[in-house]
Amino acid sequence: MKNINQLLPKQIRSLIRKGRWSKPTAGLAMGYAQANLVILPGKYAFDFLLFCQRNPKPCPLLEVLESGVHRTSFLSSDADIRTDIPRYNIYRRGRLEDTVKEISDIWKSDFVTFLLGCSFSFEEALLRAKISVRHIEENKNVPMFISSIACKSAGVFHGPMVVTMRPIPSDKVSQAVQITSRYVSVHGAPVHIGDPLKIGIRDLKKPDFGDPVTIKKDEIPVFWACGVTPQAVMMKAKPDLCITHTPGHMFISDLLNEELAIL
Amino acid sequence: MKNINQLLPKQIRSLIRKGRWSKPTAGLAMGYAQANLVILPGKYAFDFLLFCQRNPKPCPLLEVLESGVHRTSFLSSDADIRTDIPRYNIYRRGRLEDTVKEISDIWKSDFVTFLLGCSFSFEEALLRAKISVRHIEENKNVPMFISSIACKSAGVFHGPMVVTMRPIPSDKVSQAVQITSRYVSVHGAPVHIGDPLKIGIRDLKKPDFGDPVTIKKDEIPVFWACGVTPQAVMMKAKPDLCITHTPGHMFISDLLNEELAIL
Repeated sequence: MKNINQLLPKQIRSLIRKGRWSKPTAGLAMGYAQANLVILPGKYAFDFLLFCQRNPKPCPLLEVLESGVHRTSFLSSDADIRTDIPRYNIYRRGRLEDTVKEISDIWKSDFVTFLLGCSFSFEEALLRAKISVRHIEENKNVPMFISSIACKSAGVFHGPMVVTMRPIPSDKVSQAVQITSRYVSVHGAPVHIGDPLKIGIRDLKKPDFGDPVTIKKDEIPVFWACGVTPQAVMMKAKPDLCITHTPGHMFISDLLNEELAIL
Repeated sequence: MKNINQLLPKQIRSLIRKGRWSKPTAGLAMGYAQANLVILPGKYAFDFLLFCQRNPKPCPLLEVLESGVHRTSFLSSDADIRTDIPRYNIYRRGRLEDTVKEISDIWKSDFVTFLLGCSFSFEEALLRAKISVRHIEENKNVPMFISSIACKSAGVFHGPMVVTMRPIPSDKVSQAVQITSRYVSVHGAPVHIGDPLKIGIRDLKKPDFGDPVTIKKDEIPVFWACGVTPQAVMMKAKPDLCITHTPGHMFISDLLNEELAIL
């Protein structure tokens, strides 16, 4: 296999489809947008679409496929969401039941697919502006916290917003806001800057998911809405069935991050 | 009655509710966002919500109310969409059947309400930057055209994008793009700048709706997505029932235009 880092999205998806790549996708197809996946039976589709409309920062919709449709058209003209994601989580009644490499065998004609923006896109933009991203520097997972910020509920879906934290030097916070504001479809601007207690976070060294990272003197903790929010919400709403990507194992689109930017 | 131009949104809505104001709302409650209204029976709700998600420029969602809910919460904590709009259009199977001052008597528990951003918000921002808006200057309705740009279809909903045209001096086009880009939830940046033929418009003097306006030498026609698009789409999709505001007779929210701006 050619070094996977040099492959285009289409080539990587083809490897994934053949079962030859089932690992995380961070660092692959740099420059191209990756997406979070949520698949639900039709009876939940309106409620979840409305949940995303009401909570665009944690749930920024990139593409929604209608009932039974398993081919994307906006994010790629050449992708099948039943096979092109390295790993899927299958939740039944809010409990993780299985982790699998494809879902063709359990696909149903009433499934509605939601693809949501991922913070990889704005992290790349921060790095390009020489704003370092600590968890990448330290080769860790981004620290994630269940905040006290309530999502707006919609139908059966409700719950707290999960946020990511990146420590930013005081003199670069403003620029970090400006840069991420351009990427409204991948979480956009921070939801909170500074005192973690204000959003119900007691200890930055103890994230609810991911790893703790070093916060240097003169750095301010900056919080962005996180794509793990829908999975946390699913565990609360307990739909009969919900299929997501396995965290870190994203859908790789043909869309450039820059195509998602405004201004 | 006190001069209505000096009243706050809440006071104006109260007059409307009592049937004491059933005229257009342009120029009222300056600084506050006004919204387009679309009400549909539940069976069409997912398709139309998806249509809006896929076509955010013509259909920028400000708030969606769940089945049977007739009170807003984001746009106002004190409004009833059955009575607080000066005039409603009632369409059955795509045909305008009636125009009424309130809809309490025909309200059903499966009705889903969509409130969409309106260009009044960004026009105010253009004026503040001393970019004149020709149809306001000439005391006319904005010229609207059925363009050749196809909306992305969703379920039963499909059709061409309706656009508005505002002539902008060459040296201010760039600034007009910047300003309106801030208002993604009220149509956002232009969809086309320059040659009308490129988007299927043969004669700027013959708009499909509204009035023609003067285009001066050294001005470029600039086109924005228009909130009339959903009404055009309804006429094609012919749902059993659809209730909208009567054009120009908008919902007046408690939200400041500036609260809708990003960056």
